Amino acid sequence: MVEHIAVIGCGAAGATAALQARKFNRNVEISVFNSEPYSQYSRCGLPYTISGKVGTFEDLVLMPPDNWGTLKIDAKLGVTVTDIDHSLKEITYSGKGGDGVQSYDALIFATGAENADPPIKGLDKTRVYGLRTLADAKALSIEADKAKTAVIVGGGLVGMEAAEAFHERGLDVTVVEFLPHILLAMVDSDMAAIVEEHCIEHGLKILTNTAAQEITGKDSPKTVVIKNRNTEEVSEIPTDFVVVATGVRPVTKLAEKVGVETGTSRGIKTNEKMMTNFDQVYACGDCAENFEFVTRKPMAGGLGTIAVRQARVAGINAAGGDVTFPGIVGAKVTKLFGLEIASTGFTEDMANRFEIPIVKGSMKGSTKPPYYIGGKELKLKTFYNKETGKLVGGQLVGEEDAAMRLNVLTLGIQQNIDASELFDFENCYAPAICDTWDPLVSSADAARRRLKI
Amino acid sequence: MVEHIAVIGCGAAGATAALQARKFNRNVEISVFNSEPYSQYSRCGLPYTISGKVGTFEDLVLMPPDNWGTLKIDAKLGVTVTDIDHSLKEITYSGKGGDGVQSYDALIFATGAENADPPIKGLDKTRVYGLRTLADAKALSIEADKAKTAVIVGGGLVGMEAAEAFHERGLDVTVVEFLPHILLAMVDSDMAAIVEEHCIEHGLKILTNTAAQEITGKDSPKTVVIKNRNTEEVSEIPTDFVVVATGVRPVTKLAEKVGVETGTSRGIKTNEKMMTNFDQVYACGDCAENFEFVTRKPMAGGLGTIAVRQARVAGINAAGGDVTFPGIVGAKVTKLFGLEIASTGFTEDMANRFEIPIVKGSMKGSTKPPYYIGGKELKLKTFYNKETGKLVGGQLVGEEDAAMRLNVLTLGIQQNIDASELFDFENCYAPAICDTWDPLVSSADAARRRLKI
Repeated sequence: MVEHIAVIGCGAAGATAALQARKFNRNVEISVFNSEPYSQYSRCGLPYTISGKVGTFEDLVLMPPDNWGTLKIDAKLGVTVTDIDHSLKEITYSGKGGDGVQSYDALIFATGAENADPPIKGLDKTRVYGLRTLADAKALSIEADKAKTAVIVGGGLVGMEAAEAFHERGLDVTVVEFLPHILLAMVDSDMAAIVEEHCIEHGLKILTNTAAQEITGKDSPKTVVIKNRNTEEVSEIPTDFVVVATGVRPVTKLAEKVGVETGTSRGIKTNEKMMTNFDQVYACGDCAENFEFVTRKPMAGGLGTIAVRQARVAGINAAGGDVTFPGIVGAKVTKLFGLEIASTGFTEDMANRFEIPIVKGSMKGSTKPPYYIGGKELKLKTFYNKETGKLVGGQLVGEEDAAMRLNVLTLGIQQNIDASELFDFENCYAPAICDTWDPLVSSADAARRRLKI
Repeated sequence: MVEHIAVIGCGAAGATAALQARKFNRNVEISVFNSEPYSQYSRCGLPYTISGKVGTFEDLVLMPPDNWGTLKIDAKLGVTVTDIDHSLKEITYSGKGGDGVQSYDALIFATGAENADPPIKGLDKTRVYGLRTLADAKALSIEADKAKTAVIVGGGLVGMEAAEAFHERGLDVTVVEFLPHILLAMVDSDMAAIVEEHCIEHGLKILTNTAAQEITGKDSPKTVVIKNRNTEEVSEIPTDFVVVATGVRPVTKLAEKVGVETGTSRGIKTNEKMMTNFDQVYACGDCAENFEFVTRKPMAGGLGTIAVRQARVAGINAAGGDVTFPGIVGAKVTKLFGLEIASTGFTEDMANRFEIPIVKGSMKGSTKPPYYIGGKELKLKTFYNKETGKLVGGQLVGEEDAAMRLNVLTLGIQQNIDASELFDFENCYAPAICDTWDPLVSSADAARRRLKI
């Protein structure tokens, strides 16, 4: 019988785990330890505090600290867990929120991820930021008020959302991306090229295939030294401040210390119960590794949707329940300058890595029937396993209804449908909404013919 | 070996059947007979020619007559099939487009539906219209230019879309609905009430539970006499013209004449090959009856999406192929004054009629996370079979992303998922798009708890 659950971390994963444990079990004691002085806030919302699409920082806080008491959850905020003795089942913590030792029966790691600093000189200067915490966002909002130019190193989701935000605040923004295209962890090159063109048309500067080498300046940035990886040409971009958004790595130090195993993704290995190699020790969210849905191969989530779903499973199981996490499809969306970018399951690159031969259905369609005003161009691709015909991924880019269409593909992957079943999908139709054959269905049709199913 | 396929009707169903037959079989002869002088145009687009959201009538014509020749399809437009001799396999036709006899090996009925006139006196007056043909829409566009007031009898999809169109053109519009709410063939009363409130707020007059009894006036309408079905009070609404949109019935006269069977829905009975009780005689679209997806009980489609999907099956099978139609889920959507209304599978009323006990997941959610600007309220319900937990229907009403969310439910019904599987759905998430737990998922969660699965 579990008497006390300790949750380390109070982001989306930690807070959800604690809440779900409480929902499942009214009597178990629950304590949550968070190094930040806040409890759960939306990390994904941070870029929008800069642009003003999120009104105030307080709006992002999803769990006001007072609520924990009501739930009989002991939330220790501004407290760092410094040590764990798993033989005694005790954690030691200290910080502004207090010092002490807490014993536990079940332990949940929800320690998240941290920025992985790239090999760039001058990262230690002032006015060089990450964008991962509420404190980062507050500092960057002040920059948006006073600075005129910004360089964003890294054209992934966070980098691009930050770039859009500063551009909307009137800054001259340059994105420096090491790879041949932005967003390559999310979409294929052809889709990324469409997004780049769109963002450039809206006034962003994007330098792809470009390495940021050094941030010059005395205390704060003066320029960023960049090298074009094609031409090897070196040049400098003047800037008032720099945001580094080159990716994150799971925070696993404490877990590793007590012998909890990490996997190939560097996240904490978990099974379908979100349990680690130790009984009654769980991990969830950005610190955890679980399984890719189709191949069941190891994969880290790194997404809010995954974090809360894994956390629910970890929380309930820690509290005495028995639920399972179905695996990670990895649906990812964002919106940049009005353009929705959506991807689920495998990209072509992932399919290659997983050695899954694929057949594609590529389409340029419209969100509405051709005769109705205001339809937007929709570029989409769906991917199928060449041997089984099963749907394994898809991407859409368009100024409306790209993300919501993605949901159909994600459910399709989760239901293991093939191209023929997606072709049989009865999409909704009305002139003001969508045509009789949705572009998704047409894309499945193209693939189905190629697959001869 | 089929040498000649005759298709009667050239709406969405007939045109698609002919095209798909040609795609499948390059050599078969195909003739299409259409009583209207046009070939396929979007019937659903007609209301929008009035409001101007469809630019010109020509925009609605999806298949310019010249294209038929290129496809080696003999399209006889403005021609009525007057007789069929199925023992000789010959059809007789006449009209402006020519007279003659055509022999066939395979026959496809795509005769559509026609307005079913309600028991109202004075329907024979001028300026009393249906809204089913391009000719109707052209006449109504002229009314929109000259009239000041309109009465729409019937608050179904066509009636409401017409009412919106005339309102947008500046007319004073009253909708008279016999039943307690508008749109009851599509949504339940609670959802319909939301739509009514929204339309009334936007300036429409809606009289529910009201019988239109008579259209007064000498040659053209002066008033519509109505009776409140609750109070039995009789009154008159002055109007310049009247649109009657009280539903349609399948056109089956020719088919019945040769012994083709019709079913309980009054449509032509078809199997999963879209074949009637006669070998090589098919029916598709609004004239056909097929199967409701979940119960496999007889059902008429009456939707453009269903028409083209059935027609594809009929066309390919008539041309020597072997494909099947999976059954009708019945996804229906529209948009009225910016409000999306979406329904799929069973309504509560349908569930009662099919004697399927259901469990509901009802939700009031938002299309976006609470902290992000501009999210719209979303009211939704999902329905599950009480015994099996399987998803059997759902409805959404909201100012954005209601229809696209419906698609997830429709695919879910087609994939036979239960509440637990919908709860496991990995919806996409980004602040600008949707929250981590989509309202659909929360609705499944509520039902899952009730179902104890």
